[in-house]
Amino acid sequence: MKNHFATPQDAEDAFYDAIDERDAAAMLAVWEESDEIICLLPMMPVLKGRDAVAQSWRGMLGSEMRFEMEIKHLSWIESTDIAIHFVEEHVATPGQPGKQVVYATNIYRKGADGWRILLHQNSPTPPPDLRIPD
Amino acid sequence: MKNHFATPQDAEDAFYDAIDERDAAAMLAVWEESDEIICLLPMMPVLKGRDAVAQSWRGMLGSEMRFEMEIKHLSWIESTDIAIHFVEEHVATPGQPGKQVVYATNIYRKGADGWRILLHQNSPTPPPDLRIPD
Repeated sequence: MKNHFATPQDAEDAFYDAIDERDAAAMLAVWEESDEIICLLPMMPVLKGRDAVAQSWRGMLGSEMRFEMEIKHLSWIESTDIAIHFVEEHVATPGQPGKQVVYATNIYRKGADGWRILLHQNSPTPPPDLRIPD
Repeated sequence: MKNHFATPQDAEDAFYDAIDERDAAAMLAVWEESDEIICLLPMMPVLKGRDAVAQSWRGMLGSEMRFEMEIKHLSWIESTDIAIHFVEEHVATPGQPGKQVVYATNIYRKGADGWRILLHQNSPTPPPDLRIPD
């Protein structure tokens, strides 16, 4: 399991790979080891700190829920030690037609051991014709 | 109209004051002068860059829509030049009972002329009993 991320994009790839592979340990390795971390998933209460984030991802990745996710980058903002990636998550559920699209902001912070996720926040998108076109 | 913000909190206060006072010029003075800025309001398409953000706030603050907003801080994360404030916005509409509560992430960046807003993102909250208690 990878636990060093040389760039924010390496951390982002590992985050979505962990969802694809339903690997809670890999998911938790991407999050910063701090109680400042924040995770806000669709229609869930905000999760703050290692314990809350770990408990929630273990539950979700251990459940029967299956879906496939594609990521579309909309914007990157990077400073010396913080990187903000604003993306669309296109989520397909096997056996169901269509895709659900949600916005996500992923914020990474650079620590002594590389880049880790500091904040993940989802927001609903408006109807497709109002989103940024391809 | 204030256009220098010595701290991220000064910029945040000016952001919500501009909404209270329906002052589009004051609102736009709080946003960074860059095309990296992102504003994501409830159920709206993401707005990116000065022109999109300016046009949208001028429209909203010039409309007949009236509401009162209280802000509750949930978490602050600050680095040298980036500050992330995670808050709840409690929104009351005059003449209507109850309040609507939404999450917001406000990200500020320090430039040569002080702190300005770089990103504002709203997300819906789950039912009240699942939120962080007072």
